[in-house]
Amino acid sequence: MSREPLRGRDAYKLWREIGTRWADNDAYGHVNNTVYYQWFDTVVNAWLIEQGLLDIGGGNPIGLVVETGCRYARPLAYPETVELGLAIDSVGKSSIRYSLGVFAKNSLEAAAEGHFVHVYVDRESRRPVELPSGWRAKFDRIAG
Amino acid sequence: MSREPLRGRDAYKLWREIGTRWADNDAYGHVNNTVYYQWFDTVVNAWLIEQGLLDIGGGNPIGLVVETGCRYARPLAYPETVELGLAIDSVGKSSIRYSLGVFAKNSLEAAAEGHFVHVYVDRESRRPVELPSGWRAKFDRIAG
Amino acid sequence: MSREPLRGRDAYKLWREIGTRWADNDAYGHVNNTVYYQWFDTVVNAWLIEQGLLDIGGGNPIGLVVETGCRYARPLAYPETVELGLAIDSVGKSSIRYSLGVFAKNSLEAAAEGHFVHVYVDRESRRPVELPSGWRAKFDRIAG
Amino acid sequence: MSREPLRGRDAYKLWREIGTRWADNDAYGHVNNTVYYQWFDTVVNAWLIEQGLLDIGGGNPIGLVVETGCRYARPLAYPETVELGLAIDSVGKSSIRYSLGVFAKNSLEAAAEGHFVHVYVDRESRRPVELPSGWRAKFDRIAG
Repeated sequence: MSREPLRGRDAYKLWREIGTRWADNDAYGHVNNTVYYQWFDTVVNAWLIEQGLLDIGGGNPIGLVVETGCRYARPLAYPETVELGLAIDSVGKSSIRYSLGVFAKNSLEAAAEGHFVHVYVDRESRRPVELPSGWRAKFDRIAG
Repeated sequence: MSREPLRGRDAYKLWREIGTRWADNDAYGHVNNTVYYQWFDTVVNAWLIEQGLLDIGGGNPIGLVVETGCRYARPLAYPETVELGLAIDSVGKSSIRYSLGVFAKNSLEAAAEGHFVHVYVDRESRRPVELPSGWRAKFDRIAG
Repeated sequence: MSREPLRGRDAYKLWREIGTRWADNDAYGHVNNTVYYQWFDTVVNAWLIEQGLLDIGGGNPIGLVVETGCRYARPLAYPETVELGLAIDSVGKSSIRYSLGVFAKNSLEAAAEGHFVHVYVDRESRRPVELPSGWRAKFDRIAG
Repeated sequence: MSREPLRGRDAYKLWREIGTRWADNDAYGHVNNTVYYQWFDTVVNAWLIEQGLLDIGGGNPIGLVVETGCRYARPLAYPETVELGLAIDSVGKSSIRYSLGVFAKNSLEAAAEGHFVHVYVDRESRRPVELPSGWRAKFDRIAG
């Protein structure tokens, strides 16, 4: 189980700060591994909303998560603030693979590195749809 | 079940911004009622840490929660950022009752109002201890 | 801050077992105070669904939480299973006040005791509605 | 982004039921992708505790999560109960790779499939340690 080193900050195109919460720390005193995925959801969807690509309550299509993964290299702990970097790895017909880096504030070395695959589906049928025209140009801006 | 109106911003002495997360929204599309309590924990403990009154990993005493409560008046939803106001309602021999107000950013009317009672206990025995000398002066600064 | 003792098992009319999760334990090694409220939501809504009073995705009315509170007396910790007792304290024109007791399995003394107030509202307008006829008979069965 | 089909029930050696919670459902009305990882943590650590291989509060070594991943094929939703299957994929010098399958109750087709890699470390130094003698026999019993 040898491990490829985590990528540095230059792998990411867009940055968000996220505050940790008391409940994020688990019994070992560090942010629990599941919380990183809450951050991924938060960063990806906030970006989509800012770009006008997602309206949670009524928009169409919506993004459903079909695959996620994360490798953890250094612990983080409440009350620190963390920085998340986002980039797009690849764009499919109806899906996007996002890449996310988690960094302690001002740290050059990633604490964790994840990926997050969204398939965009029709809100009602929940069947995959082709990415709307106009989306690709926005995705290209944060291509990794 | 008539309800006393929630207090305004002047009831609170100290303010913190908290980012919402995707997972905070529940099936009805608003921040779930349990998440407000995560924010209370986060704001109270961060203040204690900043004041040098709490070291999660090794300090003594530690604060255990013995009572919490919240009234909800207006919904909040990811991706908005919320503002929490904090004040101290009363200081006992070994306990503190905190008061918390949750506001949408720039809103004058509270979305929710809660209380949070900490008993300070010895880390090992988990028995209540008298509040350390020096703590009271710090608590007085944010007395409501 | 003297405290009324928590009520025993005979205060509750209906019981549910809930499994704890690793992430429920916080940095002090016990179930975090916010998790009890997740259990309250889970028990109240499951009962409503079983009684045919709630359809999360499309039913009308839906219950919104307007007030919750909890007092904590004894710690709980993953991996234990806990038992929740439920009763109805009072029924208003459009609201219900539920009472919940949290017990370690087979323990006679409550670990925590909470209340949970639902206002039933129209799904679209989110305005309170009078409790549907037929609901009261079901609520009476678990009146505390 | 073609996808290998998820494995069936015979890929797993040990089963646990987990109850969903109201808060597990996100704004799209299904269990949020991050919650599956809470279940993985819960099932792996409960098994370790039952086998006498983990004492959260004081045992040594402890397992730290260095990698997780999950593929999602079918939605799940509160209030259903889910079944998790566990197997061990591979055993390293100080690490274990677990495989987890998530199934709706009585369903033959997996809703999701994940992996979870623990490195066992010294509680104080948090440096990897060789797996204690006696552990391997226990791991062999649930080898996939």
